[in-house]
Amino acid sequence: MSNLTEMLHMQYPQLRDLRPFDRAHSSTPWLDDAAGKNQRKLCASVEDAVARCGLRDGMTISFHHAFREGDRTINSVVATLARLGLKNLTLASSSLMTCNEALIEHIEAGVITRIYTSGMRGKLADAISHGLMAEPVQIHSHGGRVKLLQDGELKIDVAFLGVPCSDEFGNANGTQGKSCCGSLGYAMVDAQFARQVVLLTESLVPFPNMPASIMQDRVDYIVQVEEVGDPAKISVGAARVTSNPRELMIARSAAEVIEHSGYFRQGFSMQTGSGASATACTRFMEEKMERQQIVARFALGGITGSLVDLHEKGLIETLLDTQCFDGQAAASLARNPGHIEISTNVYANPAAKATSCDQLDVVILSALEIDTDFNVNVITGSDGVMRGASGGHCDVASAANLTIVVAPLLRSRIPTVVKRVTTRVTPGESIDVLVTDHGIAVNPARAEIRQRLVAAGLQVMDIDTLYQRAISLCGEPKPIAFTQRIVGVIRYRDGSVIDVVRQVKEES
Amino acid sequence: MSNLTEMLHMQYPQLRDLRPFDRAHSSTPWLDDAAGKNQRKLCASVEDAVARCGLRDGMTISFHHAFREGDRTINSVVATLARLGLKNLTLASSSLMTCNEALIEHIEAGVITRIYTSGMRGKLADAISHGLMAEPVQIHSHGGRVKLLQDGELKIDVAFLGVPCSDEFGNANGTQGKSCCGSLGYAMVDAQFARQVVLLTESLVPFPNMPASIMQDRVDYIVQVEEVGDPAKISVGAARVTSNPRELMIARSAAEVIEHSGYFRQGFSMQTGSGASATACTRFMEEKMERQQIVARFALGGITGSLVDLHEKGLIETLLDTQCFDGQAAASLARNPGHIEISTNVYANPAAKATSCDQLDVVILSALEIDTDFNVNVITGSDGVMRGASGGHCDVASAANLTIVVAPLLRSRIPTVVKRVTTRVTPGESIDVLVTDHGIAVNPARAEIRQRLVAAGLQVMDIDTLYQRAISLCGEPKPIAFTQRIVGVIRYRDGSVIDVVRQVKEES
Repeated sequence: MSNLTEMLHMQYPQLRDLRPFDRAHSSTPWLDDAAGKNQRKLCASVEDAVARCGLRDGMTISFHHAFREGDRTINSVVATLARLGLKNLTLASSSLMTCNEALIEHIEAGVITRIYTSGMRGKLADAISHGLMAEPVQIHSHGGRVKLLQDGELKIDVAFLGVPCSDEFGNANGTQGKSCCGSLGYAMVDAQFARQVVLLTESLVPFPNMPASIMQDRVDYIVQVEEVGDPAKISVGAARVTSNPRELMIARSAAEVIEHSGYFRQGFSMQTGSGASATACTRFMEEKMERQQIVARFALGGITGSLVDLHEKGLIETLLDTQCFDGQAAASLARNPGHIEISTNVYANPAAKATSCDQLDVVILSALEIDTDFNVNVITGSDGVMRGASGGHCDVASAANLTIVVAPLLRSRIPTVVKRVTTRVTPGESIDVLVTDHGIAVNPARAEIRQRLVAAGLQVMDIDTLYQRAISLCGEPKPIAFTQRIVGVIRYRDGSVIDVVRQVKEES
Repeated sequence: MSNLTEMLHMQYPQLRDLRPFDRAHSSTPWLDDAAGKNQRKLCASVEDAVARCGLRDGMTISFHHAFREGDRTINSVVATLARLGLKNLTLASSSLMTCNEALIEHIEAGVITRIYTSGMRGKLADAISHGLMAEPVQIHSHGGRVKLLQDGELKIDVAFLGVPCSDEFGNANGTQGKSCCGSLGYAMVDAQFARQVVLLTESLVPFPNMPASIMQDRVDYIVQVEEVGDPAKISVGAARVTSNPRELMIARSAAEVIEHSGYFRQGFSMQTGSGASATACTRFMEEKMERQQIVARFALGGITGSLVDLHEKGLIETLLDTQCFDGQAAASLARNPGHIEISTNVYANPAAKATSCDQLDVVILSALEIDTDFNVNVITGSDGVMRGASGGHCDVASAANLTIVVAPLLRSRIPTVVKRVTTRVTPGESIDVLVTDHGIAVNPARAEIRQRLVAAGLQVMDIDTLYQRAISLCGEPKPIAFTQRIVGVIRYRDGSVIDVVRQVKEES
């Protein structure tokens, strides 16, 4: 056929890059091996997958955190990479938890030298706050992480994605198999952007494992492993259900704010996040929705059993789920056709062609601190040590029509409402209402909402009044002793630096 | 905050590209407009969308052909572009049909100067075969098209995708609304690769229209239009149901070949394409599957009502659907959770990380001509004029374990089995068995299959014997009078040139 191509080139010189046909399988040599062609992604071990990926010193690896405190993939893979002698890796996990304490030794040994994450907790966060790393941790939001990937600042060489169930081509989901995490919303983004993708799967099922959250065209290698995560620990920590009376009181008050805000109407939409009061608020919404026969068009973000209840009662039409916060949500995702899995790109990326959080009416968010300018800190504790996560906080706060922060006025005799937050994660301009156990404050920029809440007889006051009450109850807290050295960079969802975290001073 | 960033740059010069936070909405200015933020993709007209896309002379536009002969989008958009005075466009439609005759005038006027397509029919194909265009048409397979996009030879500037139903963010599917085409498997690829995507939708529904085949993060602009296609015409032409006794006889024979080929076993998989005999073969498979209690794991590719019947009877576990060939298939996609929509990337792209056709056991394909080396022509008729489509032919032929071509020995007294095909689309090495109404021929490379068929008492003969019978019945056909000028380039799925189509000589 090559003289045909020559004739083509002669008649049309602009087509001279076109080459002649060789053999049917020239570009797909695996098709010569009928027996082995469909097993070519399967690896005997993580070591095998690492070798086949060509993972080298200095590269970037990524993980998802859908199993939260039950994750069994991150520590295990990094330990393997350490054993293989890899150094100077950038760790880009969608988030890190208390369970990732084991990473400390690998940071000390130089296996991991840079970290991108939404947050950190426990001993790992404590060590980093005390100067463990030579370079500051980059803290991003869930939406902001996708923008960093899209912009190319963050380039994942190999994503190691733990999934409960995959077929031999890599069609995988989080709703079948033994350890179901539910939505793979974080992992979907890594699968989309990573140069190479390794799936660690507990069960290997026949092709086609569809519908799939991660599709075969995004997966390079597959390793079957004993376990990828413990779903019982997904709802430990941030995503717990509360019976604390103060948290329930705040939740009830937040539901009243929503009811009278002007946004509680037929077809409204909401997000209630993972905080205890925020999650509890869902239950108080239920009676209001039933009484007023209001059906929500959708609930967004992290999905809890309480939201599933409302969906199954017909009070929320669609659940858009980027992460299941408990087993009930994971089971619902497998069962309910109106419970839809979405990636964090579709959820909250400010640089996507559209992002779902822009459609949100009401969101309830938590805070470790909120200041009198409504700036919110969800990263550092009152001791200046990192112990939280940026999450979707600044993403949905900026996009929703009504952003409510719920927080107790004091925690262990330390004020939550402060003059100036230790670390700014979400700018005050994005926060509309603060609900505490001592009263409600409305951002002066939203005078119309304040009016509606006052008219409804809610206990509205200035945020300065709340601040004054806090310090009258327990005094002005002693300033935290920081060094000048920066150990964390807080990236706003658009990639800009909204704050930094400094190393805390050792107590002498 | 800028002095924070300065401090960061001073401590970590490698982070000097990080810029300080400005405002919450700096990178998302539409969020300042609570009323308009979610309508920002909506365009008043196609003209409006074209203007907002910045579509210019010389750019590449694309379309999908899920509505087949009922398409109302391609001609209408190109006519609009002509009215706007655009010139020198490359038209990259996943395929073109008889209904696209209206494009002739826009090619004559220089609006369209290059074409990539899987095929052509009717007057458009006739005109191009007679030299209408200054540059040859590039004919690709469905999988090969995705590879051309992935490799960058084909760069879509603006994809115009007709869909029955979308929300204001661009979450769209083919199963809701008035004119349902079912699977949007072709369009999904354009949405993934095009620089900008314009949806033309018949109905505009509230967000979130999920699950969606095309997601909001792939869509730039949305235009509501009167109609995008007539679903009644999807099953016209190639994808028709036959009652022709000769076609039924071939179909029955093909089913017997499958039964005795060695590939008819528990959990096998199959594709039956859009040809009349191929489609009819599905029905003959049904009784064999029921009698032998064999259930297929999946059927792949274009899905017909006959395949849906088998799925609903429990004889095919999963339908992997890249295109619905009739209304029954489209309705099933909306209804059956085991009926899964897949893109042509997941279906057949040889350069994807995995492609479903690699998993196929048995495929039945059509042919306009097949030669004694088993090479197949599905593009040019016996007069040398283009009147067909490459489709998934060479993709699945190369990948399946058993590739069967079904064809009548003669069509209107012209042999189908020939010494050498007019145009080679699929190489003979990919074809295992030919089934005609005069007997069955097996590729000598598959001696084990020949043995099994002979043992089963099927009428197996050499392909040369079939060829001799054909010419003994109607004589050796007169060679087609071609000029030297190349008017079409046949691209194999890997992008190479497997043949060219020359301009037919005008009858004098």
